Amino acid sequence: MLKGNMLIAHGGGPTPVINSSLLGAVREAKRHPEIETIYGARFGAEGILAGDLIDLGAVEEERLDLLARTPASAIGSCRRKLTDGDYPAVLDCFKRFNIRYFFYNGGNDSMDTCHKIYRLACQSGYELRVIGIPKTIDNDLAVTDHCPGFGSAAKFAAASALEAAQDASALPIHVVVMELMGRNAGWITAASALYADLMPCEHLVYLPETDFDKEAFLSAVREKFARGKGLLVTISEGIHYGDGSPVADSGVVDGFGHKVPGGAAQTLCDMIMAETGLKARSEKPGLLGRTSVALMSQVDQAEAMEAGACAVRSAVEGETGFMVGFQAERKPAYTCRTCLIPLEQVANAEKKFPAAWIGEDGASIRPEFKAYCAPLIGAYDCRFVSLR
Amino acid sequence: MLKGNMLIAHGGGPTPVINSSLLGAVREAKRHPEIETIYGARFGAEGILAGDLIDLGAVEEERLDLLARTPASAIGSCRRKLTDGDYPAVLDCFKRFNIRYFFYNGGNDSMDTCHKIYRLACQSGYELRVIGIPKTIDNDLAVTDHCPGFGSAAKFAAASALEAAQDASALPIHVVVMELMGRNAGWITAASALYADLMPCEHLVYLPETDFDKEAFLSAVREKFARGKGLLVTISEGIHYGDGSPVADSGVVDGFGHKVPGGAAQTLCDMIMAETGLKARSEKPGLLGRTSVALMSQVDQAEAMEAGACAVRSAVEGETGFMVGFQAERKPAYTCRTCLIPLEQVANAEKKFPAAWIGEDGASIRPEFKAYCAPLIGAYDCRFVSLR
Repeated sequence: MLKGNMLIAHGGGPTPVINSSLLGAVREAKRHPEIETIYGARFGAEGILAGDLIDLGAVEEERLDLLARTPASAIGSCRRKLTDGDYPAVLDCFKRFNIRYFFYNGGNDSMDTCHKIYRLACQSGYELRVIGIPKTIDNDLAVTDHCPGFGSAAKFAAASALEAAQDASALPIHVVVMELMGRNAGWITAASALYADLMPCEHLVYLPETDFDKEAFLSAVREKFARGKGLLVTISEGIHYGDGSPVADSGVVDGFGHKVPGGAAQTLCDMIMAETGLKARSEKPGLLGRTSVALMSQVDQAEAMEAGACAVRSAVEGETGFMVGFQAERKPAYTCRTCLIPLEQVANAEKKFPAAWIGEDGASIRPEFKAYCAPLIGAYDCRFVSLR
Repeated sequence: MLKGNMLIAHGGGPTPVINSSLLGAVREAKRHPEIETIYGARFGAEGILAGDLIDLGAVEEERLDLLARTPASAIGSCRRKLTDGDYPAVLDCFKRFNIRYFFYNGGNDSMDTCHKIYRLACQSGYELRVIGIPKTIDNDLAVTDHCPGFGSAAKFAAASALEAAQDASALPIHVVVMELMGRNAGWITAASALYADLMPCEHLVYLPETDFDKEAFLSAVREKFARGKGLLVTISEGIHYGDGSPVADSGVVDGFGHKVPGGAAQTLCDMIMAETGLKARSEKPGLLGRTSVALMSQVDQAEAMEAGACAVRSAVEGETGFMVGFQAERKPAYTCRTCLIPLEQVANAEKKFPAAWIGEDGASIRPEFKAYCAPLIGAYDCRFVSLR
């Protein structure tokens, strides 16, 4: 039995349910006497480097319970990528606070950091259990069936697209272009087509897993809009041309060195208006897609909580060097259980949307994706009526 | 007793609850034997001009009930402004279908049309009862306390701002600029400050009722962001400089002759990045602010339904030439009742956000607005937790 303190930290952009993983981890930790003080790092890696920790065990239960409904990170996150020069300070913090259980809750960059911390502890002979807790709305972590955060972002995309489509078809005077998050992965944007069979208007979907072809796009827009039922175009913020250049580039690079995409929807609107003479309007819900409480998936929320609990349970049982993953069955009914995936398998790996699930026209999503995604978004009432 | 058929039409941009007014009107009409066939115009004025009507009385009850939860217009709307040359065709349609009850559900442009149709009927001796049903998320109709549609749009703005603020404060690496609808009226954007006292980050709010001052804005951004808690800036799409020129102009003019605003949030982000060196990201939920079912206000929904019912009831009782309005009391508790407002008082008039409710800094909203607006958004659970 390894006695000592625990530290949990957040890395990268928050999700609607990262606080649920925090809640799951804290609740689980309270059950195990070998875990003495439960610390959270204030603003992720920054808090670790500065030794700026929060005593989560001291938080009143009623406040803790609110984590289940609070979007974004209640302990704070950051985009600082730890460099080799930072790791001694990390180890110093662990020693100073007698941290023996470390949980890093983040995406693929964070799993890389988590893996490095694991190796650092091994190499320096400091006894530390390290488990990564997956988190990303982008759903681009390797090996795991899906990631906590994705179900809620997918629900937001699916609901927003279907609801905006009611508007696009009720007043079909402009092409509606909606930009969704996901960086280089099209999972969230694909979810905008989850109710394709219920769409009252035409719908085109463009993911970053395909090369964007301007002429094919404009020709599809002209043809679909001409049918008179309205047209919704959903695109990923990360769409790019065949030569790899982004359709829209903000010119900004984030703390992990990723290019920040900039205004793809508005760029396409300008293109449509200039080249086809049609009116177009852009929607970019942006952060709302990862903060909407009303569209939080209850399935996602429960799974995120369980991922946090599983991480702590596994570490107490002696596991280290793993990320919690999900194994899911979808037939005859959806079931999901946690598993442990070696960190080196997920560190910096990126799981793209499968090419086989993209329609032949490059602007639609095959039903296989619906079978995969629908169980993750939980309850959503998609019953709308048109009397037109 | 005036026997004949009824026609209801939608004008302008839809709202989350315009279909609720339709439901209220249809249900009420079914109670009155003097109303024979209940018609809806397919795509508003276009349907009237083309004699393209939908028999709403023939719609099954279960489908009709779905109107209460369906955003946008189930019968279709348009932005075509009727010209003097169109009115004979309107009268022809009424005669051809024996329309004796006409209801136009729209904003101030539509009330102008409604008023013209009312006068046309009077002048030509065609017996017609004309009642306008208010509809606009913008809340800019004159005389009435508020408009159906606004409560839901306000709830969307209030919830989205508070939820995005959790993110802006959890990862305070960029200024978050969120653009909200409302054209020349700042009501919706003001609602983004409804939970000002619960905001975990700094917040600046800019309405079109003030002149946008670039230097004052940049100085406020620098100062607020430097406090380290994150910064959310919410702006109306219609913000403009002192000389009246828009901060962002799409170059597009809509069917009513209004300039369509274009990308104010992105324009401000570019300005912030260029002039302060801070990172900034723009969010433009756009249409989602008038289609979100999850953030539909139940108060707004019920009032919209009652506005539709009141219009039909009043017409059957012999009233004509009015718009349904709301008279509300907020003390000791919120109560709202319908009233009738002469159409000429609302036709083309625009009710701006009161200057007295804007803070001295020009970037905040006074508590008087909260007292006005809070009852309109209905239930919203604003309990979030920060452990930072």
